[in-house]
Amino acid sequence: MQKGLMVVCDGSNGAGKTTVIEKLKEHVIQQGLEVVLTREPGGTPISEKIREIILDKNNAEMFDITELLLFAASRAQHVNEKIIPAVERGAVVICDRFDAATFSFQHYARGIDLTLIKTINDIAKNGFQPDMNIILDLDPVIGLSRVYGRGDELDRMEDEKLDFLIKAREGYLAQAKEYPDTFTVIDAANAKQQVADDAIRCLDSLLVARGII
Amino acid sequence: MQKGLMVVCDGSNGAGKTTVIEKLKEHVIQQGLEVVLTREPGGTPISEKIREIILDKNNAEMFDITELLLFAASRAQHVNEKIIPAVERGAVVICDRFDAATFSFQHYARGIDLTLIKTINDIAKNGFQPDMNIILDLDPVIGLSRVYGRGDELDRMEDEKLDFLIKAREGYLAQAKEYPDTFTVIDAANAKQQVADDAIRCLDSLLVARGII
Repeated sequence: MQKGLMVVCDGSNGAGKTTVIEKLKEHVIQQGLEVVLTREPGGTPISEKIREIILDKNNAEMFDITELLLFAASRAQHVNEKIIPAVERGAVVICDRFDAATFSFQHYARGIDLTLIKTINDIAKNGFQPDMNIILDLDPVIGLSRVYGRGDELDRMEDEKLDFLIKAREGYLAQAKEYPDTFTVIDAANAKQQVADDAIRCLDSLLVARGII
Repeated sequence: MQKGLMVVCDGSNGAGKTTVIEKLKEHVIQQGLEVVLTREPGGTPISEKIREIILDKNNAEMFDITELLLFAASRAQHVNEKIIPAVERGAVVICDRFDAATFSFQHYARGIDLTLIKTINDIAKNGFQPDMNIILDLDPVIGLSRVYGRGDELDRMEDEKLDFLIKAREGYLAQAKEYPDTFTVIDAANAKQQVADDAIRCLDSLLVARGII
């Protein structure tokens, strides 16, 4: 049976992930393929309960290492229960954030040791790798102004200082430079339609390369 | 300042941990020392929320690796937020289960790779080690009959087959054999008072050896 694939939509807050994910989903359906939308942290009932703990602003006492292990626990459940079975049966999995965010936020922004994160992340993923990380790149100043403009209440991870978000952005770009085969950076300062078109083009190339369409 | 220490009270379900912990607590107070009672998984607000996910019987879909990472997350928060500060200020920490249980249940009973558990556990504990694990050893058949006799509702971890509990018991005894300096096995089939007296004697030796009393 033809296997599916997994693309991750990731990047700065306010960069337009939700819109791009919706457009990608419509495009996959138009190809007559099964699409599975999911997110991290979360994606399964157990992982969503873990997400609540991670993002709850009341949990201000959380140590960095606790946060890292909770992300890993959520990911382990998500990969094993939902993502791998979906890819195995031929679906296109579109995930809102995945492990690129762990490296950006926990290593580049928080400064947790890279080897430590790799060790834990490898255990959580059990060898699984997304086929592509689509990074919506945006100046955090613009991203924050969009987030505030929406009037959303910020969660524990979003409510970080600008310096933190700048470092996280640098983390995404550093990963894209190191792993060009599995990272595509899209300029999210462009018009929404262009950003979506760029993302769809990226997904299409992948579907063709894998012989899925 | 004189540092305190940490003893873990661990072993089979129904072996009488609760009673022993209460007696140890009274004894520490009689010595004029600060006592901190705590438990795993749990012990801090964040760790208790993680405990709820681990023990919730609705979470039957949980993968072994998710469970292991959740225990580690709970432990990382517990050690850093509560245990280390307490020991540093001179308190005697008495903990209901700790990492000996992780090795017994996750490795010896569930069969998760030992090196993997050690890697994750070392990350969670960040070099911290309890001074003594007091293992209340009991035939699981007797333990289970005591637990059922109390009419307690079993949580997700307790509701395992007898074979699982037998392997876990073997795990405690194997660890005690491998690390005789930090493990003391007490026969929990004896009368409650004798079990408590044995545990108090163990704690007293430790307090004397550390120059605390």
